[in-house]
Amino acid sequence: MNIKRFKASRYELIEVARGRRAADVVLCGGHVINVYSGEYVPYNVAIYKDRIAYVGPREVGVGEQTRIIDVTGKYLSPGFIEPHAHPWVMYNPISLAEKVVPLGTTTIVNDNLFFYLHLGYDGTVEMIDQLSALPLNQLWLARVVSQSEFPEERSWFEAQQVQKLLEHEDVIGTAEITRWPIVYEGDPFAIETVEYAKKLNKISDGHTAGCSYDKLNAIVAAGIDACHEAITEEEALNRLRLGMWTTLRNSSLRPDFPSLLPLVVKGAVDTRRVLMTTDGPNPSYIARNGFVDGLLRQAVQAGVDPMKAVQMVTINAAQYLKLDDTIGGIAPGKRADILVLPDLETFVPERVFIAGKEVAKDGRLLAPLPAIDWNRFISRKPLTVSPAVLQDLRLYRPRADGMTPVIQFISNVITKRVDVALPSSEGLVDISAEPSMLYAALIDRQGKWVVQGIVANFASEIEGMASTYNTTTELLVIGRDPAAMALAAQTVREMGGGIAIAERGAVVLKIELPFLGMMMTDSFEQTVEAHERLLAAVRARGFTYGDLLYALLFLTCDFLPGLRLTPLGLYEVKTGTLVRPREHLNVSQWTGR
Amino acid sequence: MNIKRFKASRYELIEVARGRRAADVVLCGGHVINVYSGEYVPYNVAIYKDRIAYVGPREVGVGEQTRIIDVTGKYLSPGFIEPHAHPWVMYNPISLAEKVVPLGTTTIVNDNLFFYLHLGYDGTVEMIDQLSALPLNQLWLARVVSQSEFPEERSWFEAQQVQKLLEHEDVIGTAEITRWPIVYEGDPFAIETVEYAKKLNKISDGHTAGCSYDKLNAIVAAGIDACHEAITEEEALNRLRLGMWTTLRNSSLRPDFPSLLPLVVKGAVDTRRVLMTTDGPNPSYIARNGFVDGLLRQAVQAGVDPMKAVQMVTINAAQYLKLDDTIGGIAPGKRADILVLPDLETFVPERVFIAGKEVAKDGRLLAPLPAIDWNRFISRKPLTVSPAVLQDLRLYRPRADGMTPVIQFISNVITKRVDVALPSSEGLVDISAEPSMLYAALIDRQGKWVVQGIVANFASEIEGMASTYNTTTELLVIGRDPAAMALAAQTVREMGGGIAIAERGAVVLKIELPFLGMMMTDSFEQTVEAHERLLAAVRARGFTYGDLLYALLFLTCDFLPGLRLTPLGLYEVKTGTLVRPREHLNVSQWTGR
Repeated sequence: MNIKRFKASRYELIEVARGRRAADVVLCGGHVINVYSGEYVPYNVAIYKDRIAYVGPREVGVGEQTRIIDVTGKYLSPGFIEPHAHPWVMYNPISLAEKVVPLGTTTIVNDNLFFYLHLGYDGTVEMIDQLSALPLNQLWLARVVSQSEFPEERSWFEAQQVQKLLEHEDVIGTAEITRWPIVYEGDPFAIETVEYAKKLNKISDGHTAGCSYDKLNAIVAAGIDACHEAITEEEALNRLRLGMWTTLRNSSLRPDFPSLLPLVVKGAVDTRRVLMTTDGPNPSYIARNGFVDGLLRQAVQAGVDPMKAVQMVTINAAQYLKLDDTIGGIAPGKRADILVLPDLETFVPERVFIAGKEVAKDGRLLAPLPAIDWNRFISRKPLTVSPAVLQDLRLYRPRADGMTPVIQFISNVITKRVDVALPSSEGLVDISAEPSMLYAALIDRQGKWVVQGIVANFASEIEGMASTYNTTTELLVIGRDPAAMALAAQTVREMGGGIAIAERGAVVLKIELPFLGMMMTDSFEQTVEAHERLLAAVRARGFTYGDLLYALLFLTCDFLPGLRLTPLGLYEVKTGTLVRPREHLNVSQWTGR
Repeated sequence: MNIKRFKASRYELIEVARGRRAADVVLCGGHVINVYSGEYVPYNVAIYKDRIAYVGPREVGVGEQTRIIDVTGKYLSPGFIEPHAHPWVMYNPISLAEKVVPLGTTTIVNDNLFFYLHLGYDGTVEMIDQLSALPLNQLWLARVVSQSEFPEERSWFEAQQVQKLLEHEDVIGTAEITRWPIVYEGDPFAIETVEYAKKLNKISDGHTAGCSYDKLNAIVAAGIDACHEAITEEEALNRLRLGMWTTLRNSSLRPDFPSLLPLVVKGAVDTRRVLMTTDGPNPSYIARNGFVDGLLRQAVQAGVDPMKAVQMVTINAAQYLKLDDTIGGIAPGKRADILVLPDLETFVPERVFIAGKEVAKDGRLLAPLPAIDWNRFISRKPLTVSPAVLQDLRLYRPRADGMTPVIQFISNVITKRVDVALPSSEGLVDISAEPSMLYAALIDRQGKWVVQGIVANFASEIEGMASTYNTTTELLVIGRDPAAMALAAQTVREMGGGIAIAERGAVVLKIELPFLGMMMTDSFEQTVEAHERLLAAVRARGFTYGDLLYALLFLTCDFLPGLRLTPLGLYEVKTGTLVRPREHLNVSQWTGR
């Protein structure tokens, strides 16, 4: 798409600004939220093709064909920017756009994680190119590594391919490196890739959860530009002081605003490098709380000055993205991404203009969504594990071997290792006497290996749940009953990806995630409905945390504290210990063990 | 030089930040002026090679060879940035650096005007490359047009050459287009060149003196990023509201701070896009008032918050220049351009570090200056006008032809046209009965043409003054007495460029400007001394304005109000009228007229 490429020429804009050519649209009578000067200015705005041509007190550019829209009493805001989105939380980039464009988000910066893992360079580029037909500014960040190391990683995240991806006009930098210690350790591939992004004048998003002030110095020295993982005011201040673009997060997984916003409310720090993000909330959260508009509502309600809040999601973000020549403010020559807001409290736009087109009005999307043939995109990790393998109930129970390391959930996503003496039967661990525990197995999509473990305090009444929705994209199976686990796993296998819950010989919940086993291809509303069913199902079976999707996602990562099921094996993150390596699923070996 | 290229690698910085490699210098005990967070933070700073490796409370990076400098009670400031310099006001880029580096200016963005006019593409690039050896960050802006149209202009400012210049790593954008109406009129060359700069991710500096708010819209729509020509608070606010980087000027020519600073002092506007500039002050002004340090002193004395003031000459400027990843703040990975300031009032640094090297201490320059062989640079406009032509006293008096249009000085640089009935002798205007008037002639360097006029209220007792210091680089001759004018002109011709004053048959002042007829090649101190002599000489002869150099410079421009001597002829700017075209100096024709 190239956000910097315009339909309106400079010559035409000059003519409109001079009153010698008619504008397409003139918004009259409103107050411009001027993020440059920090004022609310009673100015009219003339739009020509996809750009702004005039901003000022006169009615410049009004011709016979000009559409004049009276916005008296309203505010005109630059379109909202989400600088850190994960467009794969059951919704997909299209259904997400369908929802958030009417809410005023006009630019979204997407993580490419699962697209790249499944589709590689060629498929990712094809996807990016097809999605450029969406009615909002769709930009991308390219992952440098996965969120959970796997043996083939070096060849999948290969320098030439990642660099080529970074050169794509819609890819504006490197995505968060959740495994940030590799940056701290000076991993050459990570360092060189970040440096390559700089050479291209692109950014490097960051992720430094729990990183101490001193360690942050090394991360910043390595060239990481931003972090959205501060969870206290002090952590946010640390990042700001080191010159990082400090992104305050309020997500379904981590509603961090209450502890972060005091930094901004107090007014003691300069907010020019403060941003805000929803950081990939689950579908229901967006349905209830909105998207960037929700961040603004929450921030202003918490006492943040509305101007500062709007700046955070417009000009500050644009500056971070190195796109402030193009978006982030209402001025001549800029892309005509403009919202008509009724007030400075709700932040729900009455009208949304993107690139000069009115794409939404009163919450309704007016622009057509592109029809993408999802089936064109073939995963390089097809879900081909043999049903025979999934049928073997021993697949789901770890071998009994002295004390059993248990993955004990502390929160939605944080776990700790507890070593427990558990009884065994047939040489395998037996949890039937432990009501808080479940079996868990991560099974290679092609059936080549399995990693087994025991989880505690997750959702004790789940008999069998299987999910391709997890950060490794493998098949994750959890439950009390190996037979129900096998049935859930078979069900997901038959769907080609998704989430299933089985109990007492029946499948009780079935959510198809046809796109890469992570995303629905339905409307946003249908996605919310499915997510609600899923959440209700697991809650009814003892899941007490807020966000199941992130619990599944990060159970298989290798960067958050605790014990994890990763593609390398049962892994203790803090000590970097592979507690039990994965087992090969050569059927004969397996049968023979 | 490429300011983005570093000696210290990311790996080395990480190691220093982790305490595994010794820093070269650690500044201990001071307060960092943190332009990101807007705070004064008691932090130590570790420098490794040319970059900052650690900023924080601990003494990280102290090894056996590390130089520890105690800066207790001092402030550590990012180096000052002058985003709009004219390094040719009798001083040259080297003598200017000699003076301003000890005053804390670590980055200077130069106008290439006279280098390009004289040396063309090849010579300008050679000059830029040689000057990259200076101990400060020397960046350049490329002119798109001259300051006074001349017939050969199209071929001299030819698209391919200007674009090639823009591609040079030290050229960060297009320079001010003083003839801004060409932008307003949509001049294709200007528009395409600005667009080309954008394509290269470079900036376009502006100059929109006297431009109305509505007209500014067209200029901004054309892609101009900044303007330093606001002279009232309202004009500055207009620019800010249109998203322009608004550069507040306080120069020898225009001390505009008193009318501009209230905008910032009141605190009603966001200052993130407010910058400051000295805009090419004369040598004596710098000697008396300093450079960027002087702007800070004056601003803070006028009531500007010191943090906001420092931000304006550091991070704000860096952001405008698209260099905030590299300069403008004290953070890991950034270029180690750091000043040790005694307080937040004087702003005169005790120590200046540029790229990690201590280049000045207590006002003394420690770094060596490059020795440039100025004679290598041959002007494409050699001063070859024949002495025989200069001898002809008719050269200096306009033909009598009805009412005489007189260039009446109103200020240093503003003139107005007054048509006066003047007596004549020998068919030429005679001013002997008009004590306020002088003859004036602009003579082509090669003697091909002349433009004649009468000036009033300039310096009535000058008998003859000649100067190659003017914006056309031609030979400008002014005086009451054609014989003295001829002598002054001959003297400048013999020097190969400079300024001379003659009276009663003797040369009474002679300042050689050996480099391109605009610049001395001596030390800054010697340049000040020469400038003082010049100013004293013209003041003694009736010059009452502040800045003679700018009076000379702009008498021959075609973008400031009034009547002007330009290479096309006697020109009235407001109406765009060529009042009298230039006359060809074919000797036979001339003699015969």
